Amino acid sequence: MTDTMFATDVSALDAADPLAPFRERFQLREGLIYLDGNSLGALPKATGERLAEVIGGEWGEGLITSWLEALWSTAPRRIGDKIGRLLGAKPGEIVATDSTSVNIFKALTAALSLRDERTVILSEATNFPTDVYMMQGVEAFSGGRVKAVTVAPDAIVDALTDDVAVLLLTQVHYKSGRVRDMAAITRAAHEAGALVVWDLSHSAGAIPVDLNGANADFAIGCGYKFLNGGPGAPAYLFAAARHHAATPVLSGWFGHARPFAFEEDYDPAAGIERFQCGTPPVLGLAALEVGVDLMLEADMAEVRRKSLALGDLFIEQMQPLCDAYGFELVSAQDHATRGSQVAYAHPQGYQIVQALKEYDVIADFRAPDILRFGLTPLYLRYRDMVETARRLEKVCATRAWDKPQYHQRAAVT
Amino acid sequence: MTDTMFATDVSALDAADPLAPFRERFQLREGLIYLDGNSLGALPKATGERLAEVIGGEWGEGLITSWLEALWSTAPRRIGDKIGRLLGAKPGEIVATDSTSVNIFKALTAALSLRDERTVILSEATNFPTDVYMMQGVEAFSGGRVKAVTVAPDAIVDALTDDVAVLLLTQVHYKSGRVRDMAAITRAAHEAGALVVWDLSHSAGAIPVDLNGANADFAIGCGYKFLNGGPGAPAYLFAAARHHAATPVLSGWFGHARPFAFEEDYDPAAGIERFQCGTPPVLGLAALEVGVDLMLEADMAEVRRKSLALGDLFIEQMQPLCDAYGFELVSAQDHATRGSQVAYAHPQGYQIVQALKEYDVIADFRAPDILRFGLTPLYLRYRDMVETARRLEKVCATRAWDKPQYHQRAAVT
Repeated sequence: MTDTMFATDVSALDAADPLAPFRERFQLREGLIYLDGNSLGALPKATGERLAEVIGGEWGEGLITSWLEALWSTAPRRIGDKIGRLLGAKPGEIVATDSTSVNIFKALTAALSLRDERTVILSEATNFPTDVYMMQGVEAFSGGRVKAVTVAPDAIVDALTDDVAVLLLTQVHYKSGRVRDMAAITRAAHEAGALVVWDLSHSAGAIPVDLNGANADFAIGCGYKFLNGGPGAPAYLFAAARHHAATPVLSGWFGHARPFAFEEDYDPAAGIERFQCGTPPVLGLAALEVGVDLMLEADMAEVRRKSLALGDLFIEQMQPLCDAYGFELVSAQDHATRGSQVAYAHPQGYQIVQALKEYDVIADFRAPDILRFGLTPLYLRYRDMVETARRLEKVCATRAWDKPQYHQRAAVT
Repeated sequence: MTDTMFATDVSALDAADPLAPFRERFQLREGLIYLDGNSLGALPKATGERLAEVIGGEWGEGLITSWLEALWSTAPRRIGDKIGRLLGAKPGEIVATDSTSVNIFKALTAALSLRDERTVILSEATNFPTDVYMMQGVEAFSGGRVKAVTVAPDAIVDALTDDVAVLLLTQVHYKSGRVRDMAAITRAAHEAGALVVWDLSHSAGAIPVDLNGANADFAIGCGYKFLNGGPGAPAYLFAAARHHAATPVLSGWFGHARPFAFEEDYDPAAGIERFQCGTPPVLGLAALEVGVDLMLEADMAEVRRKSLALGDLFIEQMQPLCDAYGFELVSAQDHATRGSQVAYAHPQGYQIVQALKEYDVIADFRAPDILRFGLTPLYLRYRDMVETARRLEKVCATRAWDKPQYHQRAAVT
């Protein structure tokens, strides 16, 4: 590899990067290259201080009064509105609440309540597992009324037959990073009489999203990836305003029209609040809000531009390794269908990702053979792309993956 | 009131209190009397430091590796086992996860899957609202298969007809503090062929509970009351080992037998892990664990003894106010049926609770007319009981509740 030439180019790219100042807003150890921000985003420096304030001040001093005084009870809606600005939603269409999995259940059952003459929940077979698992749970509970069906990724549109009530699809695929055309698929689903639930876990904060521009019905997604909300951060749920009459199955007290009136019968709130269920997780929401606020400071068009440029550079740098060591690009070269990650297949993928840690690069492995490199434009530099390829070459040149210590453990999240 | 006499007695009680040292483990402002720990428990001093470590160290430095290295992925089970020691559960019968409301849904649907020839979910009409709301959501989704039925509190056992699949009952009533006989009711339900889901939100950390001694089936409860886990803390779910084959409807990836194998079909974990759903909320779990660890340092028999003594003293101190101002004791005098709170009815209850804040007493109001005084033996002193009655007398003597500022806002949580 021609180190000197790239080093020069790359320094210029970093120097000209308008997003470069964001890096120092995150806690990142010197030397570490963190390419797993699409699994768990890095820690914003402001989060620790904010949580100390919420814990010591709002909880410790304010105690129960903070539900009103510190605006805890409206945090899910407030943070939802902020996330909405990243996703092309109107205020009052998103609530930050529960986990992604639980929100999938809510969105699917809400959609089913709007299409109760239809029976099928459709998805692609290689969707993120929890999406399909949640569909299967709905099927199991439905007593035969509902069927969870998965088809090959490219067969989705053809599978939109007139028994499909709802299509559940992830916009950016968790392994390949492939981007779906949200507007086109939503249109096809609507023409077939079906609704769509979009999983935006790998979209929010990673690529520009325009839910209302695509006429989306429902969406859900995760707070701990590109939104940097912290491990197991609360997730979010979008319901287009026209669907706010859908029946919530998870009809907890925080979805009630008057939660603090302690009425005996469930009467769902008129707006997006009905998609809440239990008491909001205040600590998790506070950390999520810091991450979302930070993301809102950035121009999403610029984030996308840099993400693609980082990916292009990395793909270029990886070409010699593909030739020499058999890596195979799984992500698209094409910008329109590539999310904010680049994935390669390699038979020793798991061991290579383990070995890379010794060189202070954290990437991700997804079974059976995918190395996943997450691109987070707020805290990655162009030179990190060059340096990653360099360190990966060292791993390959020494066949580090043959060492037994890289064969011991199961991969995680 | 005979101040001097009580002051003397009470100092002796505080001096002899074996739980007195726990008070300084909590952050509590001097002068404040906090009687709402049954709504939101006070802040353990250790929580801030622990969260700083989780945020700055485990998340900030460890990043994604902390799912294994910092034991995040097994925290729900570890903390569940700790809660189990307070509740008479065996290791592997409790998991800390999701909200109480979501766990009610899981427990109800799991129980229904074990009694699928039966159709009724039974509860009492005055149960905590979210319990009944969640039942109503199951009914709404069941397409006519399941019926949510509520009856008067004293009619529960008679209502255990042979169509009842599951009884959902709160052990300690949120308003009155009345304690149900868990063993006797469970026995009656089993004799009628039904299962029972116990809501332990006002039990855990408040009264001794013996789930397996009562042959309990399922239980759920909240982490932010007597367990001092923080606002919106993760809740927990108990499933007796004999019920671990029940079908989870909320079939998220963390309930899968091999969550990180990313398999296409849902295959529930063999044990309590199947009652997890999405990615665990790490920050909330860390705060909950601090609260549970602190509670585990105390002897629950001693906690109960002091709770009842605090209640007896408060009832004694309140007698003159009942006579003079019309407070009416709603909680039982009888120890066997009184939880860790004392409730009074008063027509101006809401305004009185508001006015008490001016005297630095935080109590709680529950519609339509209940003043609720939560007794948390780890951080309340005997003298706080005397002082509360004294301050309440001032509110009454000056008819502070007539002031317009106490009529403005809705009560919260």
